[in-house]
Amino acid sequence: MKKTFSPLLLFSLVILCAREKTAPDYPIQPVPFTYVQLTDSFWSHRLEINREVTIPSALRKCEKTGRIRNFEIAAGQQDGEFQSPYPFDDSDVYKIIEGAAYSLATFPDEKLSAYLDSLIAKIAAAQEDDGYLMTWRTINPNKPPTEWSGSAERWSDIGGGHELYNAGHMYEAAVAHYQVTGKRNFLDVAIKNADLIYNTFGPGKLMQPPGHQEIEIGLVKLYRVTGEKKYLDLAQFFIDQRGNSAGHELYGAYSQDHRPIFEQNEAVGHAVRAGYFYSGVADVAALTGEQAYIDAIDNIWENVVSKKLYITGGIGARRHGEAFGDNYELPNANAYNETCAAIANVMWNFRMFLLKGESKYIDVLERTLYNGLLSGISLEGDTYFYPNPLASDGVAAFNQGATTRKEWFNCSCCPSNISRFIPSLPGYFYAHRDDTIYVNLYAASHAQVELKSGLVQISQETDYPWDGRIKLIVKPEKVTHFIVKLRLPGWSQHQPVPGDLYTYIDTESSAIELTINGQLQKTDYHNGFLKMTREWQSGDTIELSLPMRVHKVEAHVAVAEDSGKIALERGPIVYCAEAVDNFGKVTNLALDPGSDFLSDFFEYVLNGVVVVRGFAARTDKNSQLQDFRAIPYYAWNHRGVGEMAVWLPMALFR
Amino acid sequence: MKKTFSPLLLFSLVILCAREKTAPDYPIQPVPFTYVQLTDSFWSHRLEINREVTIPSALRKCEKTGRIRNFEIAAGQQDGEFQSPYPFDDSDVYKIIEGAAYSLATFPDEKLSAYLDSLIAKIAAAQEDDGYLMTWRTINPNKPPTEWSGSAERWSDIGGGHELYNAGHMYEAAVAHYQVTGKRNFLDVAIKNADLIYNTFGPGKLMQPPGHQEIEIGLVKLYRVTGEKKYLDLAQFFIDQRGNSAGHELYGAYSQDHRPIFEQNEAVGHAVRAGYFYSGVADVAALTGEQAYIDAIDNIWENVVSKKLYITGGIGARRHGEAFGDNYELPNANAYNETCAAIANVMWNFRMFLLKGESKYIDVLERTLYNGLLSGISLEGDTYFYPNPLASDGVAAFNQGATTRKEWFNCSCCPSNISRFIPSLPGYFYAHRDDTIYVNLYAASHAQVELKSGLVQISQETDYPWDGRIKLIVKPEKVTHFIVKLRLPGWSQHQPVPGDLYTYIDTESSAIELTINGQLQKTDYHNGFLKMTREWQSGDTIELSLPMRVHKVEAHVAVAEDSGKIALERGPIVYCAEAVDNFGKVTNLALDPGSDFLSDFFEYVLNGVVVVRGFAARTDKNSQLQDFRAIPYYAWNHRGVGEMAVWLPMALFR
Repeated sequence: MKKTFSPLLLFSLVILCAREKTAPDYPIQPVPFTYVQLTDSFWSHRLEINREVTIPSALRKCEKTGRIRNFEIAAGQQDGEFQSPYPFDDSDVYKIIEGAAYSLATFPDEKLSAYLDSLIAKIAAAQEDDGYLMTWRTINPNKPPTEWSGSAERWSDIGGGHELYNAGHMYEAAVAHYQVTGKRNFLDVAIKNADLIYNTFGPGKLMQPPGHQEIEIGLVKLYRVTGEKKYLDLAQFFIDQRGNSAGHELYGAYSQDHRPIFEQNEAVGHAVRAGYFYSGVADVAALTGEQAYIDAIDNIWENVVSKKLYITGGIGARRHGEAFGDNYELPNANAYNETCAAIANVMWNFRMFLLKGESKYIDVLERTLYNGLLSGISLEGDTYFYPNPLASDGVAAFNQGATTRKEWFNCSCCPSNISRFIPSLPGYFYAHRDDTIYVNLYAASHAQVELKSGLVQISQETDYPWDGRIKLIVKPEKVTHFIVKLRLPGWSQHQPVPGDLYTYIDTESSAIELTINGQLQKTDYHNGFLKMTREWQSGDTIELSLPMRVHKVEAHVAVAEDSGKIALERGPIVYCAEAVDNFGKVTNLALDPGSDFLSDFFEYVLNGVVVVRGFAARTDKNSQLQDFRAIPYYAWNHRGVGEMAVWLPMALFR
Repeated sequence: MKKTFSPLLLFSLVILCAREKTAPDYPIQPVPFTYVQLTDSFWSHRLEINREVTIPSALRKCEKTGRIRNFEIAAGQQDGEFQSPYPFDDSDVYKIIEGAAYSLATFPDEKLSAYLDSLIAKIAAAQEDDGYLMTWRTINPNKPPTEWSGSAERWSDIGGGHELYNAGHMYEAAVAHYQVTGKRNFLDVAIKNADLIYNTFGPGKLMQPPGHQEIEIGLVKLYRVTGEKKYLDLAQFFIDQRGNSAGHELYGAYSQDHRPIFEQNEAVGHAVRAGYFYSGVADVAALTGEQAYIDAIDNIWENVVSKKLYITGGIGARRHGEAFGDNYELPNANAYNETCAAIANVMWNFRMFLLKGESKYIDVLERTLYNGLLSGISLEGDTYFYPNPLASDGVAAFNQGATTRKEWFNCSCCPSNISRFIPSLPGYFYAHRDDTIYVNLYAASHAQVELKSGLVQISQETDYPWDGRIKLIVKPEKVTHFIVKLRLPGWSQHQPVPGDLYTYIDTESSAIELTINGQLQKTDYHNGFLKMTREWQSGDTIELSLPMRVHKVEAHVAVAEDSGKIALERGPIVYCAEAVDNFGKVTNLALDPGSDFLSDFFEYVLNGVVVVRGFAARTDKNSQLQDFRAIPYYAWNHRGVGEMAVWLPMALFR
């Protein structure tokens, strides 16, 4: 396809211009996804599938389910009732537009671009004169949609009505669309709406925080592109009002509204709300420079990683309320682990890293990314898990009535969320601060990093996550002094997750090898990064070798469901056993923590994965040994329905 | 469910009464399926599934596709055009009634019985006054149905119109229904129709043989229950007219009409037509005592088993014309092997055995039954293969547009055929002649055999086909002198198929063990049977141990597609390799004919199968060895779509 404009350049101009350079911000800046080109076989294929399958099919679903028709009806262009089941269904359209915009940035597509414009025209037409935009209330202010209760009157149900949630996604989409295309058609809609909300909410006006956080993130993005500080102020106001509105809690712990953020130190309530909340708090902390916000989310983060994080990076253990459980409440078959919560967890941890520069946040991010997030979408890119349990009996219909991934859901937040997340992924790989380059994630790629001292090209060659050998070729425009920091993953340091929630049973020390231009380097380890300071010349080659071994993992003794069990990991990948690989069943298998496992790459299995192999004992057959195979958790449920388990009981083989 | 009548007794009365005992017949008589109760885990489950899933779902399909409405329209009870695509679609209804009747014989079901009566009432109403019955011609004698050409006028297209084919299935169904229920409602329809056909066809009347054989079998069954010899005469007339009509061939080799049966010595043309034809010839041979018929089908049988039989027992290699190929033309991925042809092959070989008493016919029957026939229906009993290829690339839609089993077909002969075959299966297990009991097939079961010298109960205990140990407990009413013949399968004698089409590479001699009451017996081997003559007492226990080893099979050098390849067998089961068990692919694998394979029963795999395991060399990866698993061919295509192969290239492992 012919490139007709340079979205890459445009993107960079847009994000650099709007705000004053001296305003507070994250100390570390990501290298935007438009400056990173993935060339690997693992992720680039996913981006391609997202572009070619996920976004088009999600848009068709929005058309088919009336989500787009809702805008036409609200605009008076068509007659009819509100078409879809939930008041927040507008947000799916926004999220897919956001994803499509990201996709356009790296893969121009005039047809898609024109389609987005036509959608935006419908959205603009559905916006009321004063900026209000929420199709189900505009269509019929007296009648709530199916599957929803509560008044349909404007601002009458800030807790449940999702006006502010929808708005947040709209701002994210509008900003993405503006950044990529330079067109203001969607941005102007967002600004008009944000101004209305700014005039409606705030001190002395409506004081309620949104029932479902998300607008905070959107307002911060709007602030970034417009430079209008009132949007940041409004985001901060919403955060401050939480647990604080009129001196009492409005929505309770479900919406993290049980007490002010500064008094919270445990992750509670609805996990997606929580993840967006903490992300918004990080944004406000960074852009206001207020340390108290950071301290609060530090405490919550410590709570999550030490007591509420699945080995897959999933969060939100409870189905009831789609919520965090109590400390160490981490059931497997009944794990909820909403895909959206995994995305929120990635967003939050990335912001934590941008605040702190510590690799432990990327450890959590990477774990979530390769496991509990990626499991949410099929290899084919057109079916989804809403919850992501760590075990299945192949019978219980855990996925909203199904035992397999589904094409869509009544509440279809996860498909639209993943469709916008995937194309943004390259933006998580590299970051920079002054004259330091951070290499956070590993995959064959090219990146362009703007250091204070000048532009640096970086090329990464690796077969990560299957192979631990990583080669980086650094190309500054001229010989330049700067720092390159390579993340040393926690798993390579026998620290799969910060804290003691998960530990490796095997204790061999890992042989990390680092060379520059073939010269072995003494490793300078700092905040979880290997730090290399030198005068870099174009073509300088860093080679890092991370040991890819199968690790046996034990959970903290307080996690009742994992008691006496082990899980298997290799690199960033968490493994699971599926019935189809293990003679039809896995709940009858036990693993010897002392036994060895082979791992080999098989190119024809599940689009190419490393399969872990060894022996298992039959607990239902006098401990008889049989061949055992495990596959990456993210790829389960692609070969029919059957039992699956991440955690398997331990047994000493005789 | 309460047993309200004794169909078993009824069945026996009916089949014994109609004909004179002195009339010629098969020298060997089968023990009727109503006298055999399967108690095993392999087949009895299939019978249950057939009763609970296959027959009800097939009846629903007949309702949904208009096959039943056709009778109502022909009867003038409803308006409309002929509903379904083919003129022979009535036959599906007949076959399912036949299967349902068999099922009623062993499992009384008043609701099903009443439903059959309501169907039969519609069929009777659709019959024209003179006995003519063919809904599409009755509905619109001027307009042929969709997907069919040719005149719709009565008897105008004996070659293609399928009037006589439909009639044959109607007679089989009517006889089955009469035998099981004692009701004449369907039988009278059949007799009225047969009389019309008898008055229409024959010397000096219409002289054409049917384009698709089947009526011959039906007429013989009608002769058996009515004692009316004219039906046997008509069957014989149709057989004799083939290749002989008006002194020239009418339909050619496609319909085995290229020359008289006595001059045929090669299986040619449409395989289902052929299989029904040879079965009909065997019936007429037995019931007339004419040796010339037997000689003819002997020659054809030799041709099939030595040159045209798949290792799976499938026949009819060519898709084009659904026909036998040339000698040794046995392609794998393009193998047609229609499920109906496998059923016809079983029917034919059983009749050959009843004529000759030789076990080689049961060898072919057993091979077909456990492999190329059983593959035609899913484990769940509700989806079907029409063709049964021996290899798949997981892409080519070999099954009428699908790569998986389908719920139904436009031409849905196979689903209806298998629904009537399965419940009749117990009738293939035992046979008798004077004072000899033949045990042909092995499965845990009870049977009651009527010898000249009195009733004998036989109980069989075994886990065949997974285990070769078979225990038979013989219970005559009193101490009696008679003969028990146990079939010694060809595969246990290194003779998988009569002739040299397939040979075992491994040449170890098999250790057959036979004991009576624990005493080792000298084996008296006769016509492929172990013959035991003695005064049997109630409780005498025969134990036979057949060696269950994995055999490597080579095909005759003239079979081009199997050149340089081997297949794996164990007992009567032919194995295949599927991608899902072999790291996603099988066309890149080679087996060492000198290597050993393990075989173990896994109860959770594919409803419980012996899995064959060993190593394979990667032809695409420098002969690197990897784990290899093979599963029974009949169970393939149950765990997603992917490559499958029965024959794999040979390679000597280094």
